[in-house]
Amino acid sequence: MRIALYDDGCLGVVQGGRVFDASAALEALPKRAKPWLATRGDWLIANLVALKPAIEGALPGAASKPVGEAKFLSPVQQPSKIIGVPVNYHEHVAEAEADVQTFSDRFRGSIEQQGFFLKAVSALVGPSEGITLRFPDRRNDHEMELGVVMGRTVSNIGVEEALSAVAGYAIALDMVVRGPEDRSLRKSGDSYAVLGPWLVTADEIENAEALDFSLHVNGELRQASNTKNMIMKLAEQIAYASRFYTLYPGDIIMTGTCEGVGPVKPGDIITCRIENIADMSVTIHPTYAEAAST
Amino acid sequence: MRIALYDDGCLGVVQGGRVFDASAALEALPKRAKPWLATRGDWLIANLVALKPAIEGALPGAASKPVGEAKFLSPVQQPSKIIGVPVNYHEHVAEAEADVQTFSDRFRGSIEQQGFFLKAVSALVGPSEGITLRFPDRRNDHEMELGVVMGRTVSNIGVEEALSAVAGYAIALDMVVRGPEDRSLRKSGDSYAVLGPWLVTADEIENAEALDFSLHVNGELRQASNTKNMIMKLAEQIAYASRFYTLYPGDIIMTGTCEGVGPVKPGDIITCRIENIADMSVTIHPTYAEAAST
Repeated sequence: MRIALYDDGCLGVVQGGRVFDASAALEALPKRAKPWLATRGDWLIANLVALKPAIEGALPGAASKPVGEAKFLSPVQQPSKIIGVPVNYHEHVAEAEADVQTFSDRFRGSIEQQGFFLKAVSALVGPSEGITLRFPDRRNDHEMELGVVMGRTVSNIGVEEALSAVAGYAIALDMVVRGPEDRSLRKSGDSYAVLGPWLVTADEIENAEALDFSLHVNGELRQASNTKNMIMKLAEQIAYASRFYTLYPGDIIMTGTCEGVGPVKPGDIITCRIENIADMSVTIHPTYAEAAST
Repeated sequence: MRIALYDDGCLGVVQGGRVFDASAALEALPKRAKPWLATRGDWLIANLVALKPAIEGALPGAASKPVGEAKFLSPVQQPSKIIGVPVNYHEHVAEAEADVQTFSDRFRGSIEQQGFFLKAVSALVGPSEGITLRFPDRRNDHEMELGVVMGRTVSNIGVEEALSAVAGYAIALDMVVRGPEDRSLRKSGDSYAVLGPWLVTADEIENAEALDFSLHVNGELRQASNTKNMIMKLAEQIAYASRFYTLYPGDIIMTGTCEGVGPVKPGDIITCRIENIADMSVTIHPTYAEAAST
């Protein structure tokens, strides 16, 4: 199933190029008894399995429109964390090593030596919201990635079981300001974590570790690879992360980018594609200063 | 006002060594129309100013008990991010520089060069929940800090205005596993971010930049300093952070630790004190493995 949130918060199912409005199913979403207390996990994703019959029941006769006319939000809204995996494709490691000036000498070593990093939950947007560059005078790069959304609560999970805890997959853009500062700062600007356009549930992806993906900027090919080229595989990533902290439903792992990362500027349009998942377009907006001066 | 969450989610006000149950005021908390969508900001803190009359109205005749008998939760439950400030006290910088083996060569340079880091929201607990060490075979350190809780949504705020956006202050423990990995990984284990025991609203603190604080482990003094010794002052921290991302109500800044950081082990009791804020005790629990074997 392809689950979307769109427009002003509608719940949708994408089939055959159209998004069907299944918002009626949200009536079946449990109420939060004490909304001032934390929920460890995105409320929709945590309840997605239980909600599936209601979603299926809402589809017959549901209103629909072409996906091109819907404004897609992030299919996950309130993860407890967004995890990034650095240096996970050999050719990206090579391009970073070849340009220490840009990629900073601070960030070297294997994935295990560098460890995963976090992106702020407040950075999360869907593709319809676009990206606003935080420091237009610095280099702001696109990093195209497979996004993994966790489906249940796991801690210290083994590699063999790890993929069974995945709710689904989406396209992820791990936007970054280059520089020497901590990754969790430079990668956490508002809108620097794009997830979308929808969540493809894990049962629809035969092998997430063999998906072609590509990214174009204004029609020019910048990044292209296959998830089979990851240094640390998906299941290993989940197992590794879950040794450091509990993973909750809705937690997002951005699984690392391939070679070809490069700068974007206001007005650019990024188009991403992952085989069997989706195509996704994201606009780089004018900066706040530019928007204010026009 | 000293605002607490305690026991099974009661809202409390601390006065004269007792916590008064003001949970009736939570009736005035707005409902979330679409609970499957993100709220940018902790729901209680975002509504705290509006809720204040209801809280005051709930106090006359409220049930109460000694603070020693209440189980305090984190007064913030769902921040959009927990921000850490590294190397913010000269003497802590000196102790780190003197022991590169423990503190890792990767993390050197000024605060601006290193940048702030993030701790996972899923790491957040209150003092009653205690700390469970994630890697008992590695060195796990206490870092005692003043915790700042943001009260409103700000972006690119100036230094002069910055403190006006603070909701209040609390005691923060920025627990960490030592090693070479990214800070946002090593500082994000479940329970590695302790905030409490309550929030002291900003109007009750005359000068947050001149508060004595100390930390003992099993009665032995480990850390003692004053917030006036910060290298980057509170208002500068807020201004700096808000250049990188929007700060939302409930966002927590852990403002850096002073010298004296050191390891803890299961069974230890950490006691923290910040002048005019609180005393707070936190137990280091048996590890998962130890608990399972008994």
